[in-house]
Amino acid sequence: MSTSDLPIRTARKRVVIIGGGFAGLNAAKALHNADVDITLVDRKNHHLFQPLLYQVATATLAPTNIAQPIRSILRDQKNVTVILDQVVGFDLQYKTVKMESGALLTYDYLIVATGATHSYFGHDEWARFAPGIKTIEDAVVIRKSIFLAFENAERQMLETGRYDPLVFAVIGAGPTGVELAGAIADTAKIYLRKDYRLIEPGDARILLIEGLDRVLGPYPAKLSASALKQLQELGVEVMLNTKVLNIEDKLVTTDKGVFPATVIIWAAGVAASPLGKLLGAGVVDKRGCVTVDQYLNPAGHKEVFILGDLAHFEQEGKQVPGVAQTAIQMGNHAARTIAADLGNQERPPFHYFDKGEMATIGRMKAVAQLKWPLKADLTGLPAWFGWLGIHILFLVGLKNRLIVLLQ
Amino acid sequence: MSTSDLPIRTARKRVVIIGGGFAGLNAAKALHNADVDITLVDRKNHHLFQPLLYQVATATLAPTNIAQPIRSILRDQKNVTVILDQVVGFDLQYKTVKMESGALLTYDYLIVATGATHSYFGHDEWARFAPGIKTIEDAVVIRKSIFLAFENAERQMLETGRYDPLVFAVIGAGPTGVELAGAIADTAKIYLRKDYRLIEPGDARILLIEGLDRVLGPYPAKLSASALKQLQELGVEVMLNTKVLNIEDKLVTTDKGVFPATVIIWAAGVAASPLGKLLGAGVVDKRGCVTVDQYLNPAGHKEVFILGDLAHFEQEGKQVPGVAQTAIQMGNHAARTIAADLGNQERPPFHYFDKGEMATIGRMKAVAQLKWPLKADLTGLPAWFGWLGIHILFLVGLKNRLIVLLQ
Repeated sequence: MSTSDLPIRTARKRVVIIGGGFAGLNAAKALHNADVDITLVDRKNHHLFQPLLYQVATATLAPTNIAQPIRSILRDQKNVTVILDQVVGFDLQYKTVKMESGALLTYDYLIVATGATHSYFGHDEWARFAPGIKTIEDAVVIRKSIFLAFENAERQMLETGRYDPLVFAVIGAGPTGVELAGAIADTAKIYLRKDYRLIEPGDARILLIEGLDRVLGPYPAKLSASALKQLQELGVEVMLNTKVLNIEDKLVTTDKGVFPATVIIWAAGVAASPLGKLLGAGVVDKRGCVTVDQYLNPAGHKEVFILGDLAHFEQEGKQVPGVAQTAIQMGNHAARTIAADLGNQERPPFHYFDKGEMATIGRMKAVAQLKWPLKADLTGLPAWFGWLGIHILFLVGLKNRLIVLLQ
Repeated sequence: MSTSDLPIRTARKRVVIIGGGFAGLNAAKALHNADVDITLVDRKNHHLFQPLLYQVATATLAPTNIAQPIRSILRDQKNVTVILDQVVGFDLQYKTVKMESGALLTYDYLIVATGATHSYFGHDEWARFAPGIKTIEDAVVIRKSIFLAFENAERQMLETGRYDPLVFAVIGAGPTGVELAGAIADTAKIYLRKDYRLIEPGDARILLIEGLDRVLGPYPAKLSASALKQLQELGVEVMLNTKVLNIEDKLVTTDKGVFPATVIIWAAGVAASPLGKLLGAGVVDKRGCVTVDQYLNPAGHKEVFILGDLAHFEQEGKQVPGVAQTAIQMGNHAARTIAADLGNQERPPFHYFDKGEMATIGRMKAVAQLKWPLKADLTGLPAWFGWLGIHILFLVGLKNRLIVLLQ
């Protein structure tokens, strides 16, 4: 047999995915039948179910309940190699990604989905006094500071017969701030009720400080109003139209006054991952997001996809919301686009499908605006059950589902 | 009514317990019906199920599965106040304990049960290269180093096409070392088998280095022989009669040769908590344990009890073993003694009741010598089921029991 009898074999296309969050992970999974070699790089070894992070901060869930090794999620998908590493540079001309370890990855398709981190609006010095909540480590730090506050008060009472009032200040009343404030109220007023002999945990004050005129700014006004009412029923003091001017150790200065606080938590600003700028393609907006076209590509690079919180994608004149649903849909879409290319088909444009919004406010309270599979604005207990069901369904892996239910 | 008509009320006796491990916690619980005021002090807020710590180090269990807030365990026991603090001094004459926070606790009865920590036999400089495993934080550090070793090898393979052999060295073949070596072998050879594309986790070498001539030194010879055989079946390389001379970064020097190792874990020496010396009562042995009489009191102090790993108590000429059973029985006994005093009854002497010993060696392998409720030497699968049942029964709280079973 001469070599000319052999079938012509082209090398398999190489897909490099940076980031194992909702977007990157779903892109990899949606490519499971594609004839490609995928390398997924993340600087952490776990995929994090970020929407439940606030429950780790209040000790309702353990870190391992909402984090799962990316490697084990993709265990049975033979076309994926998972690497723990960090990107230090892109060369878009030579289609190469440079890693901190020194490794060079070459690609035919590059997916960048490294998400967002918290931003202190130029006041990084506030971070020491008001930690944000984006990673497992953040949540564990906040959890410690919340529970230490009660412990210290009990000890102070034993020693001196009095204790400094407990005040928890949450800054920012988006979904994370609202859920966190509600969970802290539940912790103080319900879960810890019988745990202390000398102090009264239920006397703790929970302040929720927001610059806008309502909580849950991106949600419909009706849900915001309902969330406000439910927060107030839980005893959370919601301060709207209140701008934070300065944060020091146990002290929040606002345009409405100065508030001493035992624990301060930052749930306000969000900035895109610095990889958006590092990429050097497309237009980067002021939050660091890369503007993408209807195929999720930055200008001039059809082989590069920017997904999830790192993408600036507008639909009907509005940027799509930075939620898990958006990231999942974008991940699936990028995979579909690559499959279309491989099959010489036309690329489909991306369309964000809004299934609705929800937030939980303490135990058994929530707000939800469902748009799919049915249209409904829910509040209170029905919304909470909806929230519970959807979040448990989303959690990766059966074992974790069972454990989360038990807790 | 004149004051002389009132019944004479004496102040309630105050019991101060230092340490919320098996001994201290069980002493507090056994005093639940006693007419005393108990203050339990611990420098951590959680009770730790230490016998399962090695499972956290190998990611089989999450930290929260084996740790539970002392405060919530004692929630419904109204005569206990739990304080997070650290002892800095004892005044046995004035029956006062001084705390780091500045608080002074006065007592009628003092129970000191602060356990043991690891000891590097005067070579504390080894700690950096070979962490020990006594706390949740220790276990998390070891877990990270084990899993990072595999991640680094996969990345090295991607970058250079080869990787340094993976070697895990466990020093000390007591129960902890044996259980840890078995669990690491399972992790490498079973759990991670399908997780990597470029390296072969099962090729990892696991060295178990022991100075004595057998594993599980304190156990009967027959069980030691069986444990050795089971370890070897799992692929663990057991090196007996081997003295460690030096430990450096990724290098163990012994009298039998020098062994490079990716991860080194210290499971050898144990020293008592420094509070034994600080107390200034009774005879302190070379490991720092305080010698106690048949009532668990140090010489000259009938109102002070030393319990658990901190106590040096001899029965039939031998020191009782430093295991959870000993601590639990001592805690219950101290409570019984205090109750006897309050009821003007004679104090009962302590007698350690040996229910047997067991150790698990990887998944579905174990050795056990049961003495109660039935006498039996078990090995292999029957021993493993016995181990599983007893450990799950011991775990505090129903929720954790269910979760541990699921995992």
